[in-house]
Amino acid sequence: MQPRVDFISLGVRSVAASRRFYVDGLGWPVHREFPEVVFIQVNHGLILSLWDAGQMQAEAAVDAPAAVPAAVPCITLSHNVASADEVDQVVAQAQAAGATVVASPKTQPWGGYTGYVADPDGFRWEIAFNPTWTVDDGGRVTV
Amino acid sequence: MQPRVDFISLGVRSVAASRRFYVDGLGWPVHREFPEVVFIQVNHGLILSLWDAGQMQAEAAVDAPAAVPAAVPCITLSHNVASADEVDQVVAQAQAAGATVVASPKTQPWGGYTGYVADPDGFRWEIAFNPTWTVDDGGRVTV
Repeated sequence: MQPRVDFISLGVRSVAASRRFYVDGLGWPVHREFPEVVFIQVNHGLILSLWDAGQMQAEAAVDAPAAVPAAVPCITLSHNVASADEVDQVVAQAQAAGATVVASPKTQPWGGYTGYVADPDGFRWEIAFNPTWTVDDGGRVTV
Repeated sequence: MQPRVDFISLGVRSVAASRRFYVDGLGWPVHREFPEVVFIQVNHGLILSLWDAGQMQAEAAVDAPAAVPAAVPCITLSHNVASADEVDQVVAQAQAAGATVVASPKTQPWGGYTGYVADPDGFRWEIAFNPTWTVDDGGRVTV
């Protein structure tokens, strides 16, 4: 598993309010947006995702709620890999390293294949194969 | 204010436990470490900081506790700038955009000058001038 963060997703109460702050207020350009999420590129190959908290929680629906720490922060760090098989491998590697599997890998409605694990403090990592995600040599993301 | 995240700091209960997970378990190389924090490079110009939660909270000590949302996540996204003056300017710009100033800019014991603001959901951003931080053309951080 490479040491790499590809997305930072903040679970926000209002995507419109977040958009007003980051896009209108700070002047950060939108990379792509949908009603439930706004993507902003914030470094080489790195996307900040302002994501409706309810939908974010629904997508990362836990397999076994009792196993998850009570105060899971509404933030996810994403690590993208090249195939669904690699998602399974990395989730297994993380589990072997001591992570809690929060949501077993599965195909998502948007076409990707993702699993969620929690680190020793409950910080969530999404391990994702996203067939639409590319990063060019200059670090510019297309998603 | 450029759209850029330079550090992701996770406030962890045990730096040793986090180190065992990320470094020993996942095999991610340490960039630099101290008893209270471990730095790992996780993308072009991007550092993941596993930081003792108590010390992290102390450094970002709030100016006015009552003004801060009750459930501030133990995570900070950092945006680095080139001078102390620029920290003041960016904190003012963020405030004008609707951010709450959590900690007014000040000189830190480690030599930097930083202020903390919270976005509409309470996610904390550190606006920092760190005189020891550089990123080379290939994206490799020195800190």
